[in-house]
Amino acid sequence: MRKVLLATCLGSIAAFAAGGASANDELIKMSQNPKDWVMPTGDYANTRYSKLNQITAANVGKLQAAWTFSTGVLRGHEGGPLVIGNIMYLHTPFPNKVYALDLSQEQKIVWAYEPKQDPNVIPVMCCDTVNRGVSYADGKIFLHQADTTLVALDAKTGKLVWSVKNGDPNKGETGTSAPMVIKDKVFIGISGGEFGVRCHVTGYDVKTGKRAWRGYSMGSDSDMLIDPVKTTELGKPVGENSSLKTWQGDQWKIGGGCTWGWISYDPEENLLYYGSGNPSTWNPKQRPGDNKWSMTIWARNPDNGQAKWVYQMTPHDEWGYDGVNEMILADQNIAGATRKTLVHFDRNGFAYTVDRVNGELLVAEKYDPTVNWAAKVDMDKSSKTYGRPLVQSKYSTEQHGQDVNTKGICPSTMGSKNQQPAAFSPDTGLFYVPITHLCMDYEPFKVSYTAGQPYVGATLAMYPPQGESNMGNFIAWDAKTGKIAWSNKEQFAVWSGALATAGGVVFYGTLEGYLKAVDAKTGRELYRFKTESGIVGNVMTYENGGKQYVAVLSGIGGWAGIGLAAGLTNPSDGLGATGAFAELRNYTSLGGKLTVFALP
Amino acid sequence: MRKVLLATCLGSIAAFAAGGASANDELIKMSQNPKDWVMPTGDYANTRYSKLNQITAANVGKLQAAWTFSTGVLRGHEGGPLVIGNIMYLHTPFPNKVYALDLSQEQKIVWAYEPKQDPNVIPVMCCDTVNRGVSYADGKIFLHQADTTLVALDAKTGKLVWSVKNGDPNKGETGTSAPMVIKDKVFIGISGGEFGVRCHVTGYDVKTGKRAWRGYSMGSDSDMLIDPVKTTELGKPVGENSSLKTWQGDQWKIGGGCTWGWISYDPEENLLYYGSGNPSTWNPKQRPGDNKWSMTIWARNPDNGQAKWVYQMTPHDEWGYDGVNEMILADQNIAGATRKTLVHFDRNGFAYTVDRVNGELLVAEKYDPTVNWAAKVDMDKSSKTYGRPLVQSKYSTEQHGQDVNTKGICPSTMGSKNQQPAAFSPDTGLFYVPITHLCMDYEPFKVSYTAGQPYVGATLAMYPPQGESNMGNFIAWDAKTGKIAWSNKEQFAVWSGALATAGGVVFYGTLEGYLKAVDAKTGRELYRFKTESGIVGNVMTYENGGKQYVAVLSGIGGWAGIGLAAGLTNPSDGLGATGAFAELRNYTSLGGKLTVFALP
Repeated sequence: MRKVLLATCLGSIAAFAAGGASANDELIKMSQNPKDWVMPTGDYANTRYSKLNQITAANVGKLQAAWTFSTGVLRGHEGGPLVIGNIMYLHTPFPNKVYALDLSQEQKIVWAYEPKQDPNVIPVMCCDTVNRGVSYADGKIFLHQADTTLVALDAKTGKLVWSVKNGDPNKGETGTSAPMVIKDKVFIGISGGEFGVRCHVTGYDVKTGKRAWRGYSMGSDSDMLIDPVKTTELGKPVGENSSLKTWQGDQWKIGGGCTWGWISYDPEENLLYYGSGNPSTWNPKQRPGDNKWSMTIWARNPDNGQAKWVYQMTPHDEWGYDGVNEMILADQNIAGATRKTLVHFDRNGFAYTVDRVNGELLVAEKYDPTVNWAAKVDMDKSSKTYGRPLVQSKYSTEQHGQDVNTKGICPSTMGSKNQQPAAFSPDTGLFYVPITHLCMDYEPFKVSYTAGQPYVGATLAMYPPQGESNMGNFIAWDAKTGKIAWSNKEQFAVWSGALATAGGVVFYGTLEGYLKAVDAKTGRELYRFKTESGIVGNVMTYENGGKQYVAVLSGIGGWAGIGLAAGLTNPSDGLGATGAFAELRNYTSLGGKLTVFALP
Repeated sequence: MRKVLLATCLGSIAAFAAGGASANDELIKMSQNPKDWVMPTGDYANTRYSKLNQITAANVGKLQAAWTFSTGVLRGHEGGPLVIGNIMYLHTPFPNKVYALDLSQEQKIVWAYEPKQDPNVIPVMCCDTVNRGVSYADGKIFLHQADTTLVALDAKTGKLVWSVKNGDPNKGETGTSAPMVIKDKVFIGISGGEFGVRCHVTGYDVKTGKRAWRGYSMGSDSDMLIDPVKTTELGKPVGENSSLKTWQGDQWKIGGGCTWGWISYDPEENLLYYGSGNPSTWNPKQRPGDNKWSMTIWARNPDNGQAKWVYQMTPHDEWGYDGVNEMILADQNIAGATRKTLVHFDRNGFAYTVDRVNGELLVAEKYDPTVNWAAKVDMDKSSKTYGRPLVQSKYSTEQHGQDVNTKGICPSTMGSKNQQPAAFSPDTGLFYVPITHLCMDYEPFKVSYTAGQPYVGATLAMYPPQGESNMGNFIAWDAKTGKIAWSNKEQFAVWSGALATAGGVVFYGTLEGYLKAVDAKTGRELYRFKTESGIVGNVMTYENGGKQYVAVLSGIGGWAGIGLAAGLTNPSDGLGATGAFAELRNYTSLGGKLTVFALP
């Protein structure tokens, strides 16, 4: 395959790793070539920034749809394609098709792969039948199927090289996340927090599919690959049984902490980063304690999984603020010193700037001013509650208790940001963040666990903040100071991933189906195009034949579009959790398509 | 509704019929406003010519996709939308959704209608779950559902006004054709020739849905609304029992002659025109005789259905050359005199130019030079076989008999042209015809009739003409002389309807998904754009807000795309009849979308 790659990438990869290099070296080099888009995240740092600069703030207004491609599947199209040389790799929601398109031959389909999966996995996918993309390494395309099967396909032919089962859909374990390849391993998380799954991140050998290690979000120290002495939180060792002692009885065995977000990686520190999600159930009364290490930022050694540090953002979650959002790695000048930071926009409405080497908390500020469940994050290092959010009693579903409806909590359980990734531009030093601007009423209730059955334990209603009609924003964030640089209102939650470019343009999509381009400095809208269906995919860019292209998947769905995607078009049809977007049906309909844009 | 229409059409309809005018007068006026596209055929004459001329041969190269809209349905998208003022009405294949989009509000969905239909109709749809469009009159949108239900919807709200059943899917009767409104009646045909349906055209009252008349393609004179004396063929009365005496026994009761093509109308002559399809079965040995009036051009009075004249093009069909293709009405100078002609490109590969007043045959020539089943149509008025095709024994499946495979017949049963409509430009005097360029092997076999079961009686293999690789062409045809003016090769059959415009540009789509614009005079390609999926829809144009738009549905399917649409991607999976397009899967995938184009 290496030969093939050399051929297909001819002229687009200046230097190429020699024989003995690991997949990691190869990918680092490949990701530094801005003509390609070799990882679903663009790069290991998850910046989603491209050095391509043909499309600029001055000319983006002339952008045109250059070509389009139907995936042949409806429902929510999250993620986006890869481009390596002349080949584009494109994935779909369930049934998780993968297409290889030859960009040098008017997008001729080189191969198409469609796994055979039991459709019974669909009912246990909480938030639509989404998939967030494939990854590449070592001449293979890695696909994480809905049924948790991880497959390696020959990138040239689409033939199956190996496959391995990562979980069991009968227990509500499903696959929605994009794999990430680091060194000689391919990593995937798992979904199922609403089904009482105990979640984990697992690494498999890229050549054979053999499992290398698995780190759980909760359980014994060995299950979590936590060293009581060496693993730290906020600079201190976590100690023995740091998870078990924060749960009552065996609740940790069905404790959630899912891992379906993006993975980032710092080659210098040799650490991978991801977030673990909400504890199960959503009824906090059923799981006293901090529920560690749900809602946590993890830094692990990719070679053996060992956790270097952890930081739990929302101990004992009471609102379903699933902490899986991505960690964006950027070196920033904080208070006069350049720090190796990671920046994380949590669902709980706080944006965290953390020293990614040691987990030191540098900034933790609300990135939506309406956030009210906590007054702030305690930044006083001498305080007993250092690093913890100071919960406001009025919005504590724990304090109000079971079967009491706590009203007016902001943000909603969808989070101020959900899975759709933010972008970072080193040119402006700003982070570009797709915002969901909703509040909620939340009523916990007692729920019994049955394997494979929903295990939620809360009823919800979501709506825009009082006195406001916009349910979304697109903002620029200064993570050095924790301040909004600019903010654009959007009618609906912005559920599309952002792209920043060296052309000074930032791109994102909207639930109505618009691809929008805005000025990276000011947020001024420079271009919009109405694609066929709502956008929940992530914008990416590549260069082919000397021309810069911008591409995005359309296809309404995901949690934000589940009402449409699952045919629940009547707001009374169980749309309590998504009713706020019922109006969407007046703007868009189901689709599944890639639109590729270019200058004339 | 009239008030509403006036409001929504403000500024786009110069003159509007006053209170007492019939739907017909209203539609004639509306169809003369080139800014709108009020009938699926563009106009009563089925010319698919628009007077809009902002987009010209000189500037069409700069065309851009302006916006797109997903229909939320996959499989074959035949037909195209209507535009009336600021409202676009868009239909889908089964389940036959209808959308009303407000063009003045960035295509906001004003209403959406989805009928509840028994999905068991799908297996009796021979050639994918297609629908060819809705029609408008009297403040109502008329939809002909797959299950043969004709519904009238309030054009303003989408609410059901009335509905009527036109047939019975349990017998294989289905609805795929677009309704046509003439005067105070809405007309529809019926599909099911491959299930032994005896087909008909029926008119219903636009206000109430009450059936006005039904004319069968075969049976008694009264069933057919044929007057033995007044109804003529080639100038002579057809005589009594003109149909019954051309069938053996009761075979006529399951005799086919289906009516799912387009209907055209000449208001001056007060005649409507359409073609009847192939006789059932496809095994000619099971139905001796001419099988009248299958394979016939019909001219009927829309008020009472009375047939003025008929002309049977392919007596005793032996090849499945379903004669339903549209009649295009144009006044042309033939041999020195202006004649009121209709031009018909039959599946059998002959293009007929006929005096539409009296049915006189003026020109009958092959519009694909490879056509070989007949040497020619006998034009000698003194001959006993006047007007009949002179069948070549070598390609006669009748003469070879049952269970004999007759090889090398051209065209294939798909016809030199199928349902996708041609266009006519009065500026060039040329007809623009989407061509299927295939030959076939055909082996008839004995088949028993069971209601609701396939009743085909022939196995087929189709392939390009010997020594050629292109399976399609797009041609310009001079119907005055019966000659090809120019011809462009296409890799696959052209299954999209054409559009001719006063800008000197002709548009059509391809199965790979390209929208193409060519010079009306020379055929030179001026523009192409790769849409998301193969195009089997019909290109249309409209003007809104002072700007000309061109729109086309993408969504591979129909007979040409049934292999992809029904998931038969392996050529060995029963693709005998469509195997020639198996290669299509390397170019496109299932979709369902409208793409709307404009100049920058």
